[in-house]
Amino acid sequence: MKQIAGGVCAPQGFKAGGTACGIKKNGKPDLALIYSESPAVAAGIFTLNKVQAHPVLLSKEHLRNPQAQAIIANSGNANACMGAEGMKATRQMAESAAQALKIKTEEVLVASTGVIGQPLPVAKITARLEQGLEFLSAGGGHAAAEAIMTTDTFSKEAAVEFELSGKTVRIGGMAKGSGMIHPNMATMLGFLTSDVVISPELLQKALKTAGDKSFNRVTVDGDTSTNDSLFILANGRAGNVLITAESAGFATFLEALTTVCVELAKMMAKDGEGATKFVTITVTGAASEAEALQAGKAVAGSNLVKTALFGEDANWGRILCAVGYSGIDFDPERVEIALGGLPVYQGGMGLAFDEAKAKEILSQKDILITINLNRGGASADLWTCDFSYDYVKINGSYRT
Amino acid sequence: MKQIAGGVCAPQGFKAGGTACGIKKNGKPDLALIYSESPAVAAGIFTLNKVQAHPVLLSKEHLRNPQAQAIIANSGNANACMGAEGMKATRQMAESAAQALKIKTEEVLVASTGVIGQPLPVAKITARLEQGLEFLSAGGGHAAAEAIMTTDTFSKEAAVEFELSGKTVRIGGMAKGSGMIHPNMATMLGFLTSDVVISPELLQKALKTAGDKSFNRVTVDGDTSTNDSLFILANGRAGNVLITAESAGFATFLEALTTVCVELAKMMAKDGEGATKFVTITVTGAASEAEALQAGKAVAGSNLVKTALFGEDANWGRILCAVGYSGIDFDPERVEIALGGLPVYQGGMGLAFDEAKAKEILSQKDILITINLNRGGASADLWTCDFSYDYVKINGSYRT
Repeated sequence: MKQIAGGVCAPQGFKAGGTACGIKKNGKPDLALIYSESPAVAAGIFTLNKVQAHPVLLSKEHLRNPQAQAIIANSGNANACMGAEGMKATRQMAESAAQALKIKTEEVLVASTGVIGQPLPVAKITARLEQGLEFLSAGGGHAAAEAIMTTDTFSKEAAVEFELSGKTVRIGGMAKGSGMIHPNMATMLGFLTSDVVISPELLQKALKTAGDKSFNRVTVDGDTSTNDSLFILANGRAGNVLITAESAGFATFLEALTTVCVELAKMMAKDGEGATKFVTITVTGAASEAEALQAGKAVAGSNLVKTALFGEDANWGRILCAVGYSGIDFDPERVEIALGGLPVYQGGMGLAFDEAKAKEILSQKDILITINLNRGGASADLWTCDFSYDYVKINGSYRT
Repeated sequence: MKQIAGGVCAPQGFKAGGTACGIKKNGKPDLALIYSESPAVAAGIFTLNKVQAHPVLLSKEHLRNPQAQAIIANSGNANACMGAEGMKATRQMAESAAQALKIKTEEVLVASTGVIGQPLPVAKITARLEQGLEFLSAGGGHAAAEAIMTTDTFSKEAAVEFELSGKTVRIGGMAKGSGMIHPNMATMLGFLTSDVVISPELLQKALKTAGDKSFNRVTVDGDTSTNDSLFILANGRAGNVLITAESAGFATFLEALTTVCVELAKMMAKDGEGATKFVTITVTGAASEAEALQAGKAVAGSNLVKTALFGEDANWGRILCAVGYSGIDFDPERVEIALGGLPVYQGGMGLAFDEAKAKEILSQKDILITINLNRGGASADLWTCDFSYDYVKINGSYRT
C-alpha cells in the first residue's frame, strides 16, 4: 500500500466538484457533489446524538438499500431541528441532485454542516444544479473538499493505492472538522470513495472498523454534533475478486481504508478550532484497548490539559488527574507519563525533569503525550489539539 | 429558617482564622484553620478521582472515627502525587495543628488546594503554627475563607439559623472554587460547621444528600480534581434533642444544610475561572431527577454552549445538541427551550424569536436556561458559568 496524491477522485470512475450557491454569506464555496459514473455499493455511519439532522435521517433511509451513486453536501447550514420543513428541504436537495445527475433520488446521500436551527435555503441549491454540472469533473476532488469547510482552515484529503488479487485498487477521501468534534462521532463529515469490488455487508463492516480507529479517536471540544456522517461509495471499477468475507483481501482493504481515515482524522485534530498544536496521546500498558481509549479520551477531552498545552506548561498533574477521573481502574503509583519522550511522572510522584527541555518540547507544533498504565499489554493512540483563545473567539460568535 | 451573615464562625463554639505562612509566592493568605472549642462529630465526602491527594487520604483515615475538632487547609499547593514525602507532609500538617490546638492528631482534618505535583513546604506551616494562634478567633471566619482561595476572585461564605426542638441552631460554611470544577466533586473545598446535636451517621447522611443537591450540580470546566473535600463539624452546642433518625428534625436540619451548600455552590459557579456570567440550567419534564441531572450536566459542560453564552449568542441549537448527546432517551420534537423566559425552540424547530430581546437577556450577568423534556414530572437545577478568553489565560499558565 502506498499513499498517493488526491482525494475522492483518486479511484477510477469518480467525479467531484465544489461550487458556491449562495448559502454562505461570504460567497465562498458551499456546495459539494461526489458522483460515481456507475452504480456503487454504499455504507454510512452516523452521529450517536439523539438529535439528528434531517440529512442524517434521509441518508439513513436511503442506505436501507446499500447502493448509492452520489453524495451531495452543503456547508453554511446544518439543516437540523427544522421540523417538517427541514425534512422537506433535505429531500429536495437529494431530488435536485438526482435530476441533475439522472439517477434515482434514493441513490443520493445527503449531508449538511453549519449552524443548527436556521432554514436551509434549498432553492439556491436547486437553482445552482439546474444551471448545469460543469463544476463536476475527475479533477474536482479538491474543490469538493473545499466546499464542505466551515471553520476549517484547510481542506482535508487523502488517498491510497494497493493491490488486491492482482488488481490496483484505490481509496480516496475528504473530510471536514473542526469544532463540535468528539467521538462518537465528531462534527465531521467524511466522504470516501473506492473502486474496490466488495459486498455491501463487508463495506459497512470495514467502514465501522476504520471509523472506530480514526474519527472516533479525535476530540476537539467534547461536543458530539447532530450532523456527523461518514459515507463510502465503492463502484467496483478496480475489478478485483469480490470481497464477501473477512478474507486476506478484506484485511488488506481494511488496512488501506483505516490509513485514509486516520490521515483525515489527524488533519481534523490539527485543524481543531483555534488549535495551535497537534497532540497525539498514546496510552500503553492498558488491560484492554477499550481501557486505553477510555483513559486517553479523558486526557484528550480535558480543558485543563489542553489550556496547559496552549500555554506550553508541563502540567503533568492535570494529565494524571484526567486519567484519575476517566473511570478506569488503575494504580496511580504505577503510572508513567512522558512528554515528547521526556519522563515527567513515575513511581507515584513527579520527576525532577529539565524545565528548559520540557519547554522546548512543548513549544513544538506537534506534541506526543505517552501514558503507560503498567497493567497490561493493550494500547491506543488518540489525537487532539490544544485549547486557545481563538476557540473561544470562534465559538463566541459563530451563529451571528 | 433564615439566612444570616457570617460563615464557619456563625454557630456557637467555633473559631477560625487565616494567615500567610509563605506557600504562596505573592505573600497572600495561604493557611486556614477552623476549630471547635469542644469535641464535634464530623463527616466528609471526597473526590471520586482515582488519583487522590495526600490530605484526602489522611482525612479519610481520620474520619474512620467520626469525630474531629479542627480543619487545617492550605492553598498554593495541592500536595497531590508526591509519593511517601507527600503523605509525610500531610501528616505533619495535622500533627502541627494538633500540637498548637492541644488536641489529638486524629481529630484534625486536612485539605490542600493548588498546583499538583510539587513538594508541600510543610515546614512553613509548622513554623507559622509554632509562632502562635493569635489569628484564630470567633471573628476569623472571613479570614479563613480568604486563605483557601486560589484563582477565586472572591471568598465564599454562607450561614443560616433555624429552630430545632425549641433551640436555635446554626450552620455556617465556606468554600473555594474555581477551576477544575465538575461533579463529582468539583476542585473545591467546602468546610461546614454547626452547633446542632446529631449522630455521626445522620450527619454523614445529611452531608451526602446536601452535597449531591449543591456542589455536585456545579460545573465549571468538566475536570474533577484530586483534592475535593467537603467537611462538616457539629459540636452540639445548640442543645437540641439529639438527631438519630430521619425525623422531622433531621429534615429541618437537612433543608438548612442544603441551603448553605447551595448558596456556596452558586458562588462557586459565579466565580468560575474567567466567568463573566452565572448560568442556571433548569431541566423540567424529566422522567426522573437523575435524568434531569444527566441532561443538565451535558448542557452545563458543553464548551460550545458556554462560549456562545460568553458571546451572548442565542445559539439554542447547541443546547439541544448537548441534551442529544447526554445519553438520555427523549423525543427532540417534544422539547421546549427558553432563554430567560423567552421561548426559542418548540415543536421540533426553532421559533422566530425577537433577536433584540434575546440579546438583551443574554447581556445580563445572570442567565436562566430552561429545558422542558415534556416526558415526566421530575426536574433539577444546575449551575455553571460561561467560558471566556480568561479561562484559557488563567489555565494556560497556572503552574508557572
